[in-house]
Amino acid sequence: MTLPSAPEVSRHLRIVRSTRPLVHCITNTVVQNVTANALLAVGASPAMVDNVGEAGAFARVASGLLVNLGTPNPEHRSAALEATAAAAEAGTPWVLDPVAVGSLPVRTPLAHRLAAAGPRVIRGNPSEIAALAGSGEGGRGTDSDLSVDDVLPDARSLAERTGAVVAASGAVDAIVDGSGATTRVPIGTALLTRMTGGGCALGAIVAAFCGACRDDDSASVTVSAVTVYTMAAQRAAERTSGPGSFAVALLDELAALDDDAVSRALESIAVAGSLR
Amino acid sequence: MTLPSAPEVSRHLRIVRSTRPLVHCITNTVVQNVTANALLAVGASPAMVDNVGEAGAFARVASGLLVNLGTPNPEHRSAALEATAAAAEAGTPWVLDPVAVGSLPVRTPLAHRLAAAGPRVIRGNPSEIAALAGSGEGGRGTDSDLSVDDVLPDARSLAERTGAVVAASGAVDAIVDGSGATTRVPIGTALLTRMTGGGCALGAIVAAFCGACRDDDSASVTVSAVTVYTMAAQRAAERTSGPGSFAVALLDELAALDDDAVSRALESIAVAGSLR
Amino acid sequence: MTLPSAPEVSRHLRIVRSTRPLVHCITNTVVQNVTANALLAVGASPAMVDNVGEAGAFARVASGLLVNLGTPNPEHRSAALEATAAAAEAGTPWVLDPVAVGSLPVRTPLAHRLAAAGPRVIRGNPSEIAALAGSGEGGRGTDSDLSVDDVLPDARSLAERTGAVVAASGAVDAIVDGSGATTRVPIGTALLTRMTGGGCALGAIVAAFCGACRDDDSASVTVSAVTVYTMAAQRAAERTSGPGSFAVALLDELAALDDDAVSRALESIAVAGSLR
Repeated sequence: MTLPSAPEVSRHLRIVRSTRPLVHCITNTVVQNVTANALLAVGASPAMVDNVGEAGAFARVASGLLVNLGTPNPEHRSAALEATAAAAEAGTPWVLDPVAVGSLPVRTPLAHRLAAAGPRVIRGNPSEIAALAGSGEGGRGTDSDLSVDDVLPDARSLAERTGAVVAASGAVDAIVDGSGATTRVPIGTALLTRMTGGGCALGAIVAAFCGACRDDDSASVTVSAVTVYTMAAQRAAERTSGPGSFAVALLDELAALDDDAVSRALESIAVAGSLR
Repeated sequence: MTLPSAPEVSRHLRIVRSTRPLVHCITNTVVQNVTANALLAVGASPAMVDNVGEAGAFARVASGLLVNLGTPNPEHRSAALEATAAAAEAGTPWVLDPVAVGSLPVRTPLAHRLAAAGPRVIRGNPSEIAALAGSGEGGRGTDSDLSVDDVLPDARSLAERTGAVVAASGAVDAIVDGSGATTRVPIGTALLTRMTGGGCALGAIVAAFCGACRDDDSASVTVSAVTVYTMAAQRAAERTSGPGSFAVALLDELAALDDDAVSRALESIAVAGSLR
Repeated sequence: MTLPSAPEVSRHLRIVRSTRPLVHCITNTVVQNVTANALLAVGASPAMVDNVGEAGAFARVASGLLVNLGTPNPEHRSAALEATAAAAEAGTPWVLDPVAVGSLPVRTPLAHRLAAAGPRVIRGNPSEIAALAGSGEGGRGTDSDLSVDDVLPDARSLAERTGAVVAASGAVDAIVDGSGATTRVPIGTALLTRMTGGGCALGAIVAAFCGACRDDDSASVTVSAVTVYTMAAQRAAERTSGPGSFAVALLDELAALDDDAVSRALESIAVAGSLR
């Protein structure tokens, strides 16, 4: 496993900030607000076009698309299918977040269908990755008792089968591409699991980076998105003590983080890693 | 009327923290985010499964269920009926929050139907309790000009008729069981009425406590949930001056409150009460 | 162009605070929470009654109504038509916020239909005003590359055609009535564009002021709402540095702002304006 490349992460963040990608989100109603705010904070432009009859048209012109299955009511399900079909035709990269896939009877077949429909990235917690890969039954809601390391074989088989980059989120994050190459992002904070949308917002940030950096390798771009997000979270956790103030500080840190700070922090991590 | 029992409240909070109950919420779209965050802060695990075809399956495996009628669109109405039927079969305790019941023609008959379908607890503001008991026309939205004391007879008749514990929320809160026994929780802050979801989140916290403490008396468990929530709110109000920062501090205080602090604060209240 | 009248703004704010208008909101699911919190902070009483079968009944008894087209799913579309028809019959003033009108095929014809159905006020960003006036194609989501000054001719033609007051929001805001009279509100902060719902919440505040001050000129009342909101935002921006803490401070400042502070600040602006 490798670590994130500091110059790459910095370069990708600069591209996002300067191009302000339009990110189309079809996401669950619980986290729409924090997702939009996270995108604005990182420098992207969110648009929650989640109704049938507009989702396809919008996916064609958006920079990137997120499909999150957290509250899959009929309108969202149809809009997701409309949007992903249009994204495929138009070449818009899209991210699948298969929230709580496993045994729930509506979202589970839909998640499998969407996973096979060409997402650029699949982002989930360990139990969701295991369930989508076929080896697990999913978690309880968005919680997960499995670790990222537990599901690396699942992430690799899922990436190989679907052609998508697979990003598994946990105490550390891992990003796997179709060849099995794996990058570990050893940054983060448990407070991300104490606010709702902590993982869902990351899926949208990945869509922003993929939309802005279309000429770059998707796995590398996904690593950059995960690194920026978890680094902002870690900084927010350093100056807050509760989940309410953490969620506020996360947005502030996402907006404040610049490419130099990212680069310096990553170089420290790489040095520490090489000394171990 | 009695006051909360300090050892009981502490014991119930410890159970919630150690068992992390899975709380299934079918709640209005305005407050889904703050509700999920309040559940996470208190130590529970939220899951907003509000679509038809999954709500029933999930209610069977959840620790507790909340049905809140704040935005009763057709999908939520059907999901609520599906979930409560499944909860009844599986023995999952559930809480009814009849938001704005009274004269609105869709939610009012649904609230009466659900009240008769075996909720463990009914939580509402005074005007909602009066309307559901049959003596009032409901309030304007979630506001209420009646006090909790005004509607104690309504709460008692509603508890007797439905078998549910009835929790009326206001400047003080009162919890009434089917025998008419009443506990008063003399804690709180008017800032809870200056943030949206201040009452709705409490309904979810009650579901968390009922789900975690299934072997205990439901009225006693509801008293504990109301006590923990209003105590966190009072602490948040002591260090904030506006509704925005109060909502943030409420989550921090919910996460920080431990059973010892609850116990000490309640003993002070009991002593002050006995001196009066 | 004129500036806001300090005595008028103060008077309108006092009326809102003392009468606590009931504001009926049919608004997009992304911003329901922040919209309700902004209304509570300014002293109004929000109610998000957005389901068919209740929206009409509620619009008849509400003080004011907001229709925001940000997530126009079928239930919201039907509820909006039901509510605006009832508002017209009952004389309830209502505000149209035509989010992302332009080329999206569902909301665009609905926005034109609603604009012709008698809104008291139309609030939007410059690209939305241009699109609704017929001269532009709308923006990308809620963003806008046009300035308020760019679209003043559009705002005037839209106000003349519909009879509505038109409020265009940007770095400065402009309010135009059917006679073409224009008031400029030279207050604000770019941080309002870094939080989701920064503009949508203003639409609800306008509905609150129009509902509370029914005997006053609608353009003057709209100017007061925009002035109070942007002044609270400017004060919040003076003491915060990131978009997360700004959104929290905005609610605190909306709640804290009193009519005296508004009056003093406006008099300074008027003096500075006359010295230029």
